[in-house]
Amino acid sequence: MQQKTAAIVVIGNEILTGKSEDKNASYLIGELYTLGVALRRIVVIADDVNEIARVVRECADGFDYVFTSGGVGPTHDDVTIEGVARAFDRSVVRVPELEAMLRSYFGEGINEARLRMADAPDGSQLIRAEGLRWPVLATENVFVLPGVPELFRSKFDAIRERFRGEPFYTRAIYTREDEFDIAPQLDRVAGGHPEVEIGSYPTFTREDYRVKITIESKVEAAVERARDELLELLDPAAIAPGE
Amino acid sequence: MQQKTAAIVVIGNEILTGKSEDKNASYLIGELYTLGVALRRIVVIADDVNEIARVVRECADGFDYVFTSGGVGPTHDDVTIEGVARAFDRSVVRVPELEAMLRSYFGEGINEARLRMADAPDGSQLIRAEGLRWPVLATENVFVLPGVPELFRSKFDAIRERFRGEPFYTRAIYTREDEFDIAPQLDRVAGGHPEVEIGSYPTFTREDYRVKITIESKVEAAVERARDELLELLDPAAIAPGE
Repeated sequence: MQQKTAAIVVIGNEILTGKSEDKNASYLIGELYTLGVALRRIVVIADDVNEIARVVRECADGFDYVFTSGGVGPTHDDVTIEGVARAFDRSVVRVPELEAMLRSYFGEGINEARLRMADAPDGSQLIRAEGLRWPVLATENVFVLPGVPELFRSKFDAIRERFRGEPFYTRAIYTREDEFDIAPQLDRVAGGHPEVEIGSYPTFTREDYRVKITIESKVEAAVERARDELLELLDPAAIAPGE
Repeated sequence: MQQKTAAIVVIGNEILTGKSEDKNASYLIGELYTLGVALRRIVVIADDVNEIARVVRECADGFDYVFTSGGVGPTHDDVTIEGVARAFDRSVVRVPELEAMLRSYFGEGINEARLRMADAPDGSQLIRAEGLRWPVLATENVFVLPGVPELFRSKFDAIRERFRGEPFYTRAIYTREDEFDIAPQLDRVAGGHPEVEIGSYPTFTREDYRVKITIESKVEAAVERARDELLELLDPAAIAPGE
């Protein structure tokens, strides 16, 4: 079963200080799940070149795809391009094709701040797609996306189909039993079905159930097998319809 | 200027697959800011012992405080205690004092799953506080908090005052100028005032301004100095009242 993995690196002091709420990682979580990509890590870090370089490198080594969000504007705190370049020991170069697009678009209004938008880590790929005015920048397996949520979404949406894989299947069981009392049964089924992910989520705010159990895999039949086995081990009188 | 730093490690497949939305990191962002603690990193990872160990160790080495969220229940996917122990090369031990509390609380209902709640990395500290039924577990500078949002908040709230430091001061300037056109002015003020953090946030959804500029520091006078200098460099006719 082919399964691609991903990490999201959100870059921005404004998230860490609560000035802005993250909207991009939370959007991408749902998109990647729908696309069948296993998201394995989200990291939120400050606008710091060395921090960006270190985290991007670690994620690029560990996962198939890395998506960065933020830090790609014209000001002193926009250091993502430099950070990604440093992650791969590359220099930042001005890309002639991007420079030509900017000069054509801004005409007389072109200035050094706008030209910085043509800078990229050496050897980056420019991904063109329908509906995109500017290409998406990719350096190795790192896709560099802007922090402004509207732009982040339109750029990701334009390239999303290239990430599509086999979908995940998920079933849920809701029970009024206490998590402490069903832990051995959950452990047993989890141990016997390594091809499925079993999650157990207690709640203290619902009247109708106490634990939501999720069973997930890329193989639908495996999900059903694990679910059937679990249902045999749980108290049938305590099963609830759930959400 | 004394400034403490922090990291948050959110542990849970349910966040990475979109089954649950993170509420704990987003709560802690605001709390830490109010307390004057500089949050430097948020990491969301899966329920994987080695991953937890690696990330917790890196954060514990790099920051003053680390807060973990999730993975502390009785089931197979609750591996935070083991991960934190492995981060510090310690074994997991059953803490006699916690075991006594559990036996007294559950009486006849005690079982192995419930007794697992008495397990902790060897040499951990138990923090007692008013309003807490169970102490908060701390291993070195790592504070282990539960994933259920209501429990996370009540536990953090009970110990929050021990993290209080000097507050942050923040001022904002809103301008109708384009970020590209004020980038040199922002760079100049940021370069001349290394004791303040200057943030620049373009928006495409507001009619009344195009860029929000934030100026932040623990020294109020430094914030005012940088703000005054910036206001002299920006077009006064383009300044907006903002939010």
